[in-house]
Amino acid sequence: MSPEEAQARFAAARVARLATADADGVPHLVPVVFAAVTGAGGDVIYSAVDAKPKRTTALRRLANVRANPRVALLVDVYDDARWDVLWWVRADGDGYVIEPDEPEARHAVGLLVARYRQYRDAPPAGPVLAVRVTRWSGWTAGPGA
Amino acid sequence: MSPEEAQARFAAARVARLATADADGVPHLVPVVFAAVTGAGGDVIYSAVDAKPKRTTALRRLANVRANPRVALLVDVYDDARWDVLWWVRADGDGYVIEPDEPEARHAVGLLVARYRQYRDAPPAGPVLAVRVTRWSGWTAGPGA
Repeated sequence: MSPEEAQARFAAARVARLATADADGVPHLVPVVFAAVTGAGGDVIYSAVDAKPKRTTALRRLANVRANPRVALLVDVYDDARWDVLWWVRADGDGYVIEPDEPEARHAVGLLVARYRQYRDAPPAGPVLAVRVTRWSGWTAGPGA
Repeated sequence: MSPEEAQARFAAARVARLATADADGVPHLVPVVFAAVTGAGGDVIYSAVDAKPKRTTALRRLANVRANPRVALLVDVYDDARWDVLWWVRADGDGYVIEPDEPEARHAVGLLVARYRQYRDAPPAGPVLAVRVTRWSGWTAGPGA
């Protein structure tokens, strides 16, 4: 699959899975909603955490990215009845944490609110996790795999 | 969510996402079909790769586990219309690679073939990736989260 097709499939998806790892290489994995944008500097994927991220999992992903910026995000389609239609796409990149009062965070929250109606009532007010994509890859079981 | 409930939800799912990381902490992420079993030594999650894993992605996950056994597997449910029904469960553990001629690999392939009809016509003949689970965790948006 071409990087362009992988990027397009990813950008259209509604949920992705985010893998980070701490400084010792211990991976952490959570589902995220996101907004993917293409700018002059390349593709960036934004996701947000709660305003007061008390949950261990939200703190973990931010701490991991601060200690080790390498991350991966995956979108996939699984159909138990039809393995011939399966596909996945992955974004490998470098993450960085943006504090909520920074312009880039406000921009990202605007994109997330526009994309997910649930965020309209309660926009995410915490830090934003941004991932600058360094590689798009993918696989499909169908023709052209 | 209790570890028991997380384990039960995971074991019933049809697809999971596997995160490994190399010795430098660079994460790798792919979807996998799997079989989860509970033995005297605890819970183990098995997945398989092709007999001749030429694909970079299959080689990568095996090489990562050999270099760094820490892995995470995630099962989640996403519903764009109803964020109140979302949930995810995660298995953190230590992975190890089993060569196809070993008894544990044959046992694992038997479990996979029994669970996925597509494997009946073409049982996986390559190495098996086993993950000994050290921690079950989970989250649900509904009551009891």
